Amino acid sequence: MNELSLIECVPNFSEGRNVEVIDAIVRSIASASVSILGVSSDVDHHRTVVTFVGSPDSVVEGAFRGAAAAAERIDLEAHRGVHPRIGAADVIPFIPLRGASLADCATLARRLGARMGDALDIPVYLYEAAATRPERVDLADVRRGGYEALKTAIQSDPTRAPDFGPARLGRAGASAVGARLPLIAFNVYLDTADVAVAQAIARAVRASSGGLTCIKALGLLVGGQAQVSMNLTDFRQTGLDVVLSAVESEARQHGARVERTELVGFAPQAALIDAALAALHLPNTARDLVLEARLGDITGDYRPIPFD
Amino acid sequence: MNELSLIECVPNFSEGRNVEVIDAIVRSIASASVSILGVSSDVDHHRTVVTFVGSPDSVVEGAFRGAAAAAERIDLEAHRGVHPRIGAADVIPFIPLRGASLADCATLARRLGARMGDALDIPVYLYEAAATRPERVDLADVRRGGYEALKTAIQSDPTRAPDFGPARLGRAGASAVGARLPLIAFNVYLDTADVAVAQAIARAVRASSGGLTCIKALGLLVGGQAQVSMNLTDFRQTGLDVVLSAVESEARQHGARVERTELVGFAPQAALIDAALAALHLPNTARDLVLEARLGDITGDYRPIPFD
Repeated sequence: MNELSLIECVPNFSEGRNVEVIDAIVRSIASASVSILGVSSDVDHHRTVVTFVGSPDSVVEGAFRGAAAAAERIDLEAHRGVHPRIGAADVIPFIPLRGASLADCATLARRLGARMGDALDIPVYLYEAAATRPERVDLADVRRGGYEALKTAIQSDPTRAPDFGPARLGRAGASAVGARLPLIAFNVYLDTADVAVAQAIARAVRASSGGLTCIKALGLLVGGQAQVSMNLTDFRQTGLDVVLSAVESEARQHGARVERTELVGFAPQAALIDAALAALHLPNTARDLVLEARLGDITGDYRPIPFD
Repeated sequence: MNELSLIECVPNFSEGRNVEVIDAIVRSIASASVSILGVSSDVDHHRTVVTFVGSPDSVVEGAFRGAAAAAERIDLEAHRGVHPRIGAADVIPFIPLRGASLADCATLARRLGARMGDALDIPVYLYEAAATRPERVDLADVRRGGYEALKTAIQSDPTRAPDFGPARLGRAGASAVGARLPLIAFNVYLDTADVAVAQAIARAVRASSGGLTCIKALGLLVGGQAQVSMNLTDFRQTGLDVVLSAVESEARQHGARVERTELVGFAPQAALIDAALAALHLPNTARDLVLEARLGDITGDYRPIPFD
């Protein structure tokens, strides 16, 4: 990892309604020489996801400034939303894109966590590839019970002591800071309004109930339509084409069909190329026959992100 | 079009066996500040395809040097091969990749043609987007009867007078010089040794017999296996997923199945992304959610080739 390495950071903030607050947070992040790829706010979830990229130093700086701006402006005592959350800057993952490893990103998470604890007085829990103990790998475990439950547990339960910062919650709450691979958020809409069908399919395909490895899935009702909402946490383990086939096959058993799908946020190009090769019955070696990739080998002006 | 424009050139030479001759041609091309992406020789066809890229000036220079080296070393009077051909540097297409249009590439074709006619005394026919008359758009019409038929026709038949150079053939023959969009060579192997099945499928899917627009197709027997060998001349008109579905559906009617496929040479990334979106039931707008494309908008170090 060096200053030419490219790191992605996707912090989630517990504010999805007040545009001035969201703008202030995004401007704080952008002031740190990073590039904002996208900002997505959800009114129901009362939550905003910011996607930005930059050098290792600049993404840590951007994340710190965003967390500071959020802590100043967001009061968890007044926050209500359907999404589980423990703090203003609720979760901050670093993702290696180029010239950095997952371990490098765990190092960045520790740097940010230490600084947030010291300078902002915010309790920080390291999660996923940055976790300091097995029971903190899963973000769901770190956020168990949300801000409300953590407020007392952080003082009374030694297993919930933070990795950095004080063992007490202020109105800005706590933060989960971690490192992970790029995640693909992929939603499949079915031709039914029966949410039970989506829930049954989600149970069948997700890793936690014995389904496909590296797949998280929920069955939801969105705009009156049943939706299987999924995260692919490592598309080289289970790709888009494989998970879609599984959903289609399960749906058929419930007499339902896939109507359309959507990506939420960005997907690495390699995940789509992999899906194309599978659909076209092409061998994996055909990856090397993508014109732009070959051009980039020569001119150096193109670098697909290497996920192998 | 300027010196930063990126042009691809894919000349076909009538020599596929003599390695020294092939090397001399490739070295002549490479001496012109272009980047060689690939060299593919076929012994049966007695033919070599070179793929190279560079600025407009450098690709014209590279193509000229390659044509000169080929004219010095290849004698059409002694050439035998199964592929139709009219000359040593048989066909030279220019393809716009970045910062150039098809019309720009037609300009380059005229520049090269004029120079080959003047300096090398080789008759040149402009074809496809560079053609000066409708009956020369199709390369097959330009090469009709091959070198042997053209030798007399070029002198006796006014409709076969070249666009540049003398109206007579030397031992280096003539050249077809043109401009076209990137072409995808896509072969589909069937689970049968019956070439008649491949031929029937080819007839059903190719544009010339009322099939799919912008598809050329032949049924062949390759290594004892029936193969539908196709060119997609404009994948935004008919994409890889569409043509494969058509072949699969025709194959079923003959009791055959698709076993595997292959790309010959390079395919533009957009053709594979399009196929992935179709296979995954994603909307076309998901093109904008490819992480690397979004990164490139910001950092400028990534430019997918715009084919729209």
